[in-house]
Amino acid sequence: EMSVLQEISQNVKSIKQLDYAVLARRANQIQKELSQGVRKPYKELIDLCWGDPHSMDVKPLTFVRQVLAACVYPELMSSHKLPLDVRQRAQWLLGRCDGGSVGSYLAPTGIPEIVQRMSESIRRRDGGVPCNPDNIFISPGSQWSLTVTSLLLTYLNNEAPLRTGILTPVPCHVTTIMSIKSLGAAVIPYFLSEEHGWALQVEELQRALESAKGGCNPVALYVINPGNPAGYVQSRKSIQEVIQFASEKRLFLLADEVYQDCVYGKNSEFVSYKRVLAEMGPPFSDTVEVASFHSVSKGFMGECGLRGGYVELVNLDPNVVKYIFNLICKDSTTPVLAHFAMDLMMNPPRPGDPSYPLYNQLMLCGAPVVTLGYIKNMLVKNVKTAHEVVNSLPGFSCQPVEGGAFVLPRVFLPPRAIQKAKEEGMQPDTFYCMRLLEEMGVLVSPGCEYGQKEGTYHIRFCIMASQDIIDEVLKRLTTFHTKFMKDFS
Amino acid sequence: EMSVLQEISQNVKSIKQLDYAVLARRANQIQKELSQGVRKPYKELIDLCWGDPHSMDVKPLTFVRQVLAACVYPELMSSHKLPLDVRQRAQWLLGRCDGGSVGSYLAPTGIPEIVQRMSESIRRRDGGVPCNPDNIFISPGSQWSLTVTSLLLTYLNNEAPLRTGILTPVPCHVTTIMSIKSLGAAVIPYFLSEEHGWALQVEELQRALESAKGGCNPVALYVINPGNPAGYVQSRKSIQEVIQFASEKRLFLLADEVYQDCVYGKNSEFVSYKRVLAEMGPPFSDTVEVASFHSVSKGFMGECGLRGGYVELVNLDPNVVKYIFNLICKDSTTPVLAHFAMDLMMNPPRPGDPSYPLYNQLMLCGAPVVTLGYIKNMLVKNVKTAHEVVNSLPGFSCQPVEGGAFVLPRVFLPPRAIQKAKEEGMQPDTFYCMRLLEEMGVLVSPGCEYGQKEGTYHIRFCIMASQDIIDEVLKRLTTFHTKFMKDFS
Repeated sequence: EMSVLQEISQNVKSIKQLDYAVLARRANQIQKELSQGVRKPYKELIDLCWGDPHSMDVKPLTFVRQVLAACVYPELMSSHKLPLDVRQRAQWLLGRCDGGSVGSYLAPTGIPEIVQRMSESIRRRDGGVPCNPDNIFISPGSQWSLTVTSLLLTYLNNEAPLRTGILTPVPCHVTTIMSIKSLGAAVIPYFLSEEHGWALQVEELQRALESAKGGCNPVALYVINPGNPAGYVQSRKSIQEVIQFASEKRLFLLADEVYQDCVYGKNSEFVSYKRVLAEMGPPFSDTVEVASFHSVSKGFMGECGLRGGYVELVNLDPNVVKYIFNLICKDSTTPVLAHFAMDLMMNPPRPGDPSYPLYNQLMLCGAPVVTLGYIKNMLVKNVKTAHEVVNSLPGFSCQPVEGGAFVLPRVFLPPRAIQKAKEEGMQPDTFYCMRLLEEMGVLVSPGCEYGQKEGTYHIRFCIMASQDIIDEVLKRLTTFHTKFMKDFS
Repeated sequence: EMSVLQEISQNVKSIKQLDYAVLARRANQIQKELSQGVRKPYKELIDLCWGDPHSMDVKPLTFVRQVLAACVYPELMSSHKLPLDVRQRAQWLLGRCDGGSVGSYLAPTGIPEIVQRMSESIRRRDGGVPCNPDNIFISPGSQWSLTVTSLLLTYLNNEAPLRTGILTPVPCHVTTIMSIKSLGAAVIPYFLSEEHGWALQVEELQRALESAKGGCNPVALYVINPGNPAGYVQSRKSIQEVIQFASEKRLFLLADEVYQDCVYGKNSEFVSYKRVLAEMGPPFSDTVEVASFHSVSKGFMGECGLRGGYVELVNLDPNVVKYIFNLICKDSTTPVLAHFAMDLMMNPPRPGDPSYPLYNQLMLCGAPVVTLGYIKNMLVKNVKTAHEVVNSLPGFSCQPVEGGAFVLPRVFLPPRAIQKAKEEGMQPDTFYCMRLLEEMGVLVSPGCEYGQKEGTYHIRFCIMASQDIIDEVLKRLTTFHTKFMKDFS
């Protein structure tokens, strides 16, 4: 007799085994061995695979944590140890919750006043381009809202003879690719141009679209700006070209802009798709459909554990917006504190507020306060150091890192290393990462996880870590790489 | 030319318009009118539709909030204002997070030590019945994990000629019914016996199962114990009968046990399905498949805004457990603080801990501390008062409320009221609720939302509110009901 649960459908079975999983498993074993006292050439394992700043000793912003703590335990406000504007903000936020508690349910649309303030913040960011709060949806993370939006596209297309296709960059972070595929939609890969600093080129979009003909029905173009894993930041001109292309081909633009605050390049600046769209004027500004994603996990706050993000929808039919809203509300589980964190991210202290000088300056001497300036400064230094060190190693070539949270250098592996990887049944860059992990206790992820041009190999690591950690990783990488190249030359 | 998004599929369109929505819309209007100074017979609107204790002035537990605040802003631990065990617990919890921050990502399986402690707590609850931590999955709420589990059942059955059927109680809270239906599964209603205090009777399960023959493929039985919206608490014997039935019919038991801590009846106690199953011995104890759901939103903590729950799976094939796990992890967005809250709920201070006396006693005189004892005491009083007052009104009949968070009295509406409701295009009990809202500013929900026997009418309201609120609601209900019965007699 069979249990009702013994037969599992393919839908559930088909969860992809990632190359990264092999590395992660080994890393876990090494972690255990270290804790059991097994001697290794290193005392601590360092994992730079994820964009998870707090796990890598980047400290949370003091202003943010003070406000959230006061919201959790309002008795803290009766003491004067917290700055006045911290107490005022906490009071204001709690006043927006039923019963003045972060333990109450929120309306599925979120707290109207917070959404209103978010829309004003987006408007300021975009130099005055209007932002309608009704088009903002709060979600437990940007990945979640991206999945819901893609789900909608799949639904829309569910009576068409061909399945939904979404143009997706190569390289691209894995979670998005997995989400799109698990929804039954097709990924149409377009390659970013590494030689041009991982630029997004319209000719390549054109080629990718042509290649999809007959195989699926392309309805959307997914762009990541600033890039992840590639640190490219699009110029206004580049965005204009993409918008023109989307308009011509009637593609819905899914703009992943979660690293909008993380731009390091001297000549780079973040400009939103929505702003460029508005600046282009009609017919673009009132026809091209855009969804822009943001999150409290990414950027300088790095509050991954709070689970909060939003999507802003531009130029969508209000009826469609209503349906997306229903879809989002039905399963939304965004915690109250994530709504609050969104308010803090988008409305930091302003000139004149008691916390402002502290919040923006590099670092108050000796005070246990973590400021935006301090974090920014640290990351800019990390990017600079990582880029310089990696580029100085023979066999490495690293494009400028203009934004985002990752470095993605190309590694030119010797033929003997590639041969050896094949013998061990691994992708060449996975093999490289496995050796680095084994010998140096450093976990980075292989380029094959994100997609790369045939015959090219990369590694990716996060630069959102304390300076000490980045320095240590670069030291270990240098030692390892020098030996690796010698061993396999 | 059509936008890619202008054509919406039926899947998205078919979101049900609830009777409750009409009431909620009117309540919003009234709220606005009140704030604009429109004069009404009441100054404040009271909404008792949801199990949302903090919104109804039930205060959060001090111990819980102190620990969470210290985790959010660890600088608080350097002061001695927080009790020692609060600081120790916060320190321990933060020690389980990468980088010691609630802002880091967690492994999809959660924090192993917390899951281990949860399993020990479940084992204690069940008088020593073993609990394997590998069978516990943390989720952003019990509703979420119930949806995922139901989704799995639907997948399993997706090649069968008939769609998945789930036996579901009447009355039942709406969200679950909507979830099951939106997954494409069939709801097979079984009626709880109001005359017997809303008891679950096996003969009725039998009847319901028979009625489904040929229409769908029944694979699961959903039970809510302690009940919601009906306040029935199952005895050991009743649970044994249900388990025998499930075993015989090879049904997977979905046991919604989120109100396990909320039992008020003098002769009632909560016994888990898992415990009864173990006590029954083989063949039941090692074959009947059970999923038990719990949540930090329900019970005395009432932390709905944190978004945390878990499901424990019993007797499932380990391979199936692995697949459920994959399914859960892929989209899980449980915030770190919800994992912590789960630890606090399942491992409250114990005898000997500095916070213990405070945590358990009724109330420390004059101190601004909210204890478990205080909350329990208040709710027991609320249930008693509500039951007495409602039963004293002519035309009302309320079964004993043994557990849960709601009172669900039957109201015998006069024929003229039923006639009037029909003329206004409303269900009779919706009409009653609308009048109560309009005339007295009290929002309760109509029985038709939850399902009820043809020709019977009910109202449901939450008793998880401060005593003042419950007293005020009962006063307004008494005035309204007396007038209503007179007007329509």
